[in-house]
Amino acid sequence: MTAPDEAGRRPGTGPEHIEDEGRWARAALAGVAEPGDCPLHDFVSRVGGAQALAALRTGRGLAGLAGAERYRARIGDADPAAVHGQTVRAGARVIVPGDDEWMPGLDLLSGLGVPSSAPPLALWVRGRHRLTDLESSPVVAIVGARAATTYGCDVASSIAYDLAERGVVVVSGAAYGIDGAAHRAALAAGGTTVAVLACGVDRAYPVGHEAMLERIATQGAVVSEAPPGRHPSRSRFLTRNRIIAAMSDGVVVVEAALRSGALNTAHWATQLSRHVMAVPGPVTSAMSAGPHRAVIDRGASLVTDAADVLELVSALGSGGQSMRRGEERARDHLPADALAVLEALPARAARDAGQLAVAVGIPLDAAIGALGLLAADHWVERATTGWRRLPRRE
Amino acid sequence: MTAPDEAGRRPGTGPEHIEDEGRWARAALAGVAEPGDCPLHDFVSRVGGAQALAALRTGRGLAGLAGAERYRARIGDADPAAVHGQTVRAGARVIVPGDDEWMPGLDLLSGLGVPSSAPPLALWVRGRHRLTDLESSPVVAIVGARAATTYGCDVASSIAYDLAERGVVVVSGAAYGIDGAAHRAALAAGGTTVAVLACGVDRAYPVGHEAMLERIATQGAVVSEAPPGRHPSRSRFLTRNRIIAAMSDGVVVVEAALRSGALNTAHWATQLSRHVMAVPGPVTSAMSAGPHRAVIDRGASLVTDAADVLELVSALGSGGQSMRRGEERARDHLPADALAVLEALPARAARDAGQLAVAVGIPLDAAIGALGLLAADHWVERATTGWRRLPRRE
Repeated sequence: MTAPDEAGRRPGTGPEHIEDEGRWARAALAGVAEPGDCPLHDFVSRVGGAQALAALRTGRGLAGLAGAERYRARIGDADPAAVHGQTVRAGARVIVPGDDEWMPGLDLLSGLGVPSSAPPLALWVRGRHRLTDLESSPVVAIVGARAATTYGCDVASSIAYDLAERGVVVVSGAAYGIDGAAHRAALAAGGTTVAVLACGVDRAYPVGHEAMLERIATQGAVVSEAPPGRHPSRSRFLTRNRIIAAMSDGVVVVEAALRSGALNTAHWATQLSRHVMAVPGPVTSAMSAGPHRAVIDRGASLVTDAADVLELVSALGSGGQSMRRGEERARDHLPADALAVLEALPARAARDAGQLAVAVGIPLDAAIGALGLLAADHWVERATTGWRRLPRRE
Repeated sequence: MTAPDEAGRRPGTGPEHIEDEGRWARAALAGVAEPGDCPLHDFVSRVGGAQALAALRTGRGLAGLAGAERYRARIGDADPAAVHGQTVRAGARVIVPGDDEWMPGLDLLSGLGVPSSAPPLALWVRGRHRLTDLESSPVVAIVGARAATTYGCDVASSIAYDLAERGVVVVSGAAYGIDGAAHRAALAAGGTTVAVLACGVDRAYPVGHEAMLERIATQGAVVSEAPPGRHPSRSRFLTRNRIIAAMSDGVVVVEAALRSGALNTAHWATQLSRHVMAVPGPVTSAMSAGPHRAVIDRGASLVTDAADVLELVSALGSGGQSMRRGEERARDHLPADALAVLEALPARAARDAGQLAVAVGIPLDAAIGALGLLAADHWVERATTGWRRLPRRE
């Protein structure tokens, strides 16, 4: 093994230039404090990752960092090269402020002024999916109880499936119950889903969701602010929830007991001015008490399906027009063949006219005619791989 | 049979003085038009019942009554003495504006300016209960689908029972389903319940609720703006709903399909600036679609139990303090014995200290001590028949 150089880099595994030095310094510093630590975040933001790391190592240049000794006590573990190696072995990458993939919503956290609310120093991302499209697509978190009922899981699945099919990115926490139902439905719809973990992205938590997390990494992304190898803890679940809220345009609470992590996520969402939405259920179900109180006591919006969610988070909703009725009305005017062809076309994949004719059960020339009409009306477009849907119309 | 005198009175059965002449003229005129008829209501309000009746009979003095011929075509049926006789035989009384029992809320209907929205010309009331206490007690309408689910009926019962037990008057429409569940639960709680019918108060509609309507007449009141003998019709159900809304401080929709009479009542309530409340249920239940849309599209308030309802309709709610938490906090400070004695005391009946000691399972002197403490703290008072609860504290 090659010895690290002065800046803690190991040739061949470490950062190659100054930008990467800051990246891996931030990543190393993430191991020095608990998530959301405000003094350390502010210090790193002010002086940069590399200089913050050097200052904590040497004890010089720490002016303005309250409680610096706390961080210095753990600074021996902060090794950029080691973190880089762990990250590579985890099949992950690290993103930091300034990266294309760094979601602007994360920076909103710096304005909250409550303990453990700072933006993450860095985020680990496992998965081929790039987070840049989180800026162009609506992003909706679907969260809820681990001990969810069948009803809750069914509704979470239904909403997540319909949202993912419409191109919405579904974010959740990969837990049993509602989280898992939401991720799986988004995967089944061929959509993009992002799991935000309270542990390192190299760990499967819960272990029963190991296979699901692998699929999420393939079709979406597994994200964490915790360095690889870190275990989850109760407090880390709560701080993790702020990342879910900050990444999303809105948070849907499907089922939750009166005091629960899902309501904690909703609380972060409220502080970040995200849409907080809650799914109703029987008033006789303790699992629906959380969503109901969120509506009654905290001003969350009631939602019953994906259309209600989109009404709130989509641009259309803010434009004042009813997405549900607008789209229904627009579709009402389509001839039956065209409507059938449109409905046979998946949300995010292309099909050729022959495939669609077979799927709908109409002659090829009828399918081609229907596609022409749909194209003229801006429902679909011809791509190199066939016909595909255009984004939902206003 | 004695011949009627000039004013249409039959000695011994008719009105004895001018005030009653106006009353029975109004009652007779109620048979000349459909409920809520605005031109006739405005004319009667302007010239008085007796003069309006005389004008329609003679055809003179009808200036300002649009479409007077419509009413004149039916004026032959308008016989104050006959209506008086029918009313007496039905065991009912007629109340008109100016009576103690005439609820001020009914007059708000005159400001709506939509067809069939006028206040009733008169109301028939069957039952010993006087409606004057509707001004001092909160009045809550609980309405919903006839084809309700077991869940809906259970929730309607639970809310109605708890409201009635706290002294709230429960109003509904005596239909199968939610209405019946609400009335029955209020009766079971020993509370006051009012059924507003779309037919005459002498008719049992639906017939399956004949026994229930008898009990309501005994323990509360059966009310209608339709003269005795009149049949219900679809339009009369819809105009009836405005009376339910106008009599109530708030309307709770428990279960309702998307287009339903219960939502029509909610719509009247909105126009009258009453609290419109809706009970959530499974999003998979068509019967909960009405309440959910009322919340999402029309700004109804979500309520899950009687405490939520009281929070909105009681003075405490408007004072900004949480009734639920306020009362819970206040009760938290009571010693265990006192709390147990308080909880053993029914909402609307008195008990003596001995009965309470037995009910709670504590010695008599402990019960007396507890009652003294509760009285000092204004939870209870000593009445001639024993100890009873005081109205809920602020």
